[in-house]
Amino acid sequence: MSEHKIYKPKPISGFPEWLPEYRVIELQWMDRIRKVFERYGFCSIETPSVEEIEALEAKAGETEKEIYTLTRLQADENDKDARLALHFDLTVPMARYVAQHFNGLVFPFKRYQMQRVWRGERPQKGRAREFYQCDIDVVNVDSLPLHFDAELPAVMFEAYQALDIPPVEMHLNNRKIIIGYLEGIGIKDIPFVTRELDKLGKLGPEKITKILADSFQGDISLAQKCLALAQIKSDDNSFINQIHALGVANELLEQGLSELKFVMDNLRHLPKGSVFADLGIIRGLDYYTGTVVEVYFKDKPGLAIGSGGRYDNLAGSFISQKLPGIGVSIGLTRLFWMLMEDGYIKPGAKSPTQILVVLPEESRRPEAAETARLLRQQGYNVELFHSDSKVKKQLSYAERKGIPYVWFPPFEDGKPHEVKNMATGQQTQVDLSHLEALKDIIK
Amino acid sequence: MSEHKIYKPKPISGFPEWLPEYRVIELQWMDRIRKVFERYGFCSIETPSVEEIEALEAKAGETEKEIYTLTRLQADENDKDARLALHFDLTVPMARYVAQHFNGLVFPFKRYQMQRVWRGERPQKGRAREFYQCDIDVVNVDSLPLHFDAELPAVMFEAYQALDIPPVEMHLNNRKIIIGYLEGIGIKDIPFVTRELDKLGKLGPEKITKILADSFQGDISLAQKCLALAQIKSDDNSFINQIHALGVANELLEQGLSELKFVMDNLRHLPKGSVFADLGIIRGLDYYTGTVVEVYFKDKPGLAIGSGGRYDNLAGSFISQKLPGIGVSIGLTRLFWMLMEDGYIKPGAKSPTQILVVLPEESRRPEAAETARLLRQQGYNVELFHSDSKVKKQLSYAERKGIPYVWFPPFEDGKPHEVKNMATGQQTQVDLSHLEALKDIIK
Repeated sequence: MSEHKIYKPKPISGFPEWLPEYRVIELQWMDRIRKVFERYGFCSIETPSVEEIEALEAKAGETEKEIYTLTRLQADENDKDARLALHFDLTVPMARYVAQHFNGLVFPFKRYQMQRVWRGERPQKGRAREFYQCDIDVVNVDSLPLHFDAELPAVMFEAYQALDIPPVEMHLNNRKIIIGYLEGIGIKDIPFVTRELDKLGKLGPEKITKILADSFQGDISLAQKCLALAQIKSDDNSFINQIHALGVANELLEQGLSELKFVMDNLRHLPKGSVFADLGIIRGLDYYTGTVVEVYFKDKPGLAIGSGGRYDNLAGSFISQKLPGIGVSIGLTRLFWMLMEDGYIKPGAKSPTQILVVLPEESRRPEAAETARLLRQQGYNVELFHSDSKVKKQLSYAERKGIPYVWFPPFEDGKPHEVKNMATGQQTQVDLSHLEALKDIIK
Repeated sequence: MSEHKIYKPKPISGFPEWLPEYRVIELQWMDRIRKVFERYGFCSIETPSVEEIEALEAKAGETEKEIYTLTRLQADENDKDARLALHFDLTVPMARYVAQHFNGLVFPFKRYQMQRVWRGERPQKGRAREFYQCDIDVVNVDSLPLHFDAELPAVMFEAYQALDIPPVEMHLNNRKIIIGYLEGIGIKDIPFVTRELDKLGKLGPEKITKILADSFQGDISLAQKCLALAQIKSDDNSFINQIHALGVANELLEQGLSELKFVMDNLRHLPKGSVFADLGIIRGLDYYTGTVVEVYFKDKPGLAIGSGGRYDNLAGSFISQKLPGIGVSIGLTRLFWMLMEDGYIKPGAKSPTQILVVLPEESRRPEAAETARLLRQQGYNVELFHSDSKVKKQLSYAERKGIPYVWFPPFEDGKPHEVKNMATGQQTQVDLSHLEALKDIIK
């Protein structure tokens, strides 16, 4: 290697990384989310970052084109490795995991998983190519009580609340309503219509009406009927009357309405105005079969910061047992990134150090080192300044890293230790043999 | 997608995953390691999983052939994306990070990083293709006190001790000793000789002597001199006399000896027999320039479970400033995997749930749900059994998941709540309005 050739590093578009004072906030968030998930009995699992391509394609749906595959840089020609790709979500790997370890798991299986996922999309505002998702799912054999369709969104909501972020709202729908309704009005190509309705927020009702009418041989009234459903939204059960007013009779539709009502009723304990029945929520991934949910900032609709839904047969391509499940996912990186760009996230500490122990001069090093050890034993995060620099320089280091306390071992034997509060400037004598008294000085 | 075609999932060689009861132990380990790292003032950072291939190749050394590159499954022909590859360690990404964010960091910069890395090696016992490393590094501008060369191994040692694993020992060396000595005996192709000496443990002294002698035109005595150094090992400073007894005079050698002595002296507070000067430690990666360290289980030499060293110029290919550093890395996945295979790791809980709240019958659901909420507010991890099943079935679920307490809301109004300790079978009446008393019942 040449030491003279400099490869100037630059950010890779779509692969965010944070400075320490922001990473510490992300880490706090992950700790809090995990705590909420565990509070409801979800256990942690992790799966490899890769799956065999066949496993991903079994359920990839529309994201298929966004998969990153792996190649060994110097693969032999006769390399017989499985074809591997990075996972694009945590739901498909979880389904594969449940099928693979079926006999080792207790059902209903409730797991959380907080890992990075990868999508080879064109990078754009809020959309990274590598990002954290924080997922909970519950999967059971044969059937799964509808109560979970309310519980999981509620757990997700509690996780958002634990983050001290601007208020969010959850938008719920049920695929049975959409499909039943579209069947009821005589739509033949339901996947096409749902795909178009999913673009409603982006393209607006006029464009979508036109696209649909064109596909219906110019039948604008039919297109309008599709739109009418997708535009219904209520924070109570009035969505039911609004849908019935459209005069469509269909059994699947009624089943979906009753399920959505059940879920709405079971989310009544959440703050008023934070839960909506929103018939415009479609969810692109094709494995959802019942309840679907998306989460948005109240004051910033557009990009979903969380989503999920029920799937009756996600593991069906891996195992013959019927394994219905429901899962929700917090888009941690997107959420964090959006609030970073808005300047909402205040930087945290640049260092976890609570106390910097000063090295008064080289001859005092053993005492300084011993002091640091004692303080660590008391549970404090402590750094010892290793180079024999002027005290002013050591104080400046503490200041620039935001270390809140600086400890001065004595410059000569018999003198007291002192500790300085960097915020107030107050300096206090301390007794090394009564370190429990520190609790009153160091908060 | 067809529901009838079943893609039976199987483990992907080299990409381990664990059942929940083992994952929970891995997670505890990561929490403990992180706590130790923070106790010494290392801040958390994470870098993307990928780097541009050029950045990795700047320092990849011998691992170059093991890099995984990424390709978008459906990349366009005119796809102008940067050529990306998964990182094979956390040191090179850290060096790139420090260079890129140079103006945003405070030096000495001390960071920890616990992430997965990928190497496309042939999978074999203990060697995964995707694995966690837990790294700490300190990087400074221009110079870095030698005290860090002792502190970082000591922090690493403390992290191992926090894991309740079999005893480990640290083997320290200094590249200046190796290079100075080899120069001193007149070796020309030092990289070749160190590469061969690095295989000493695998191939044994006879084979290595032969290989070296062959390359020295049959000079067995010279080969034996190389071996003589690599076979020196002591848990005190006697290694210095042993090396001097070999009668080689070289300035770099003396500098290395004095550095290694300094480090050994500064690790004297660690338990006797856990720190060795081991002149056979070479470290393959070509960026180390001073102290090097490897960690082994005491009773299982062979595979290193941790390693690291000092590098004077790792960021040199990214930035013109001189940024010396030292770092050590815990091979978490390898460590965990080795102990799993030995049956050393006892499975933990299958679920974080502490209390399962029974649903006595459907009509009692509101009270059961409210009970679960109250218990969560007290800080307990609580699950509510959602389906209206026989109590026996609910108890069986708690038993199979290892949930330690089962809570019975009353079957009729006015009756008391009861909680059952699943281990002892003891059932106790509890008062919902005095939940703080639970501390004596639920440990």
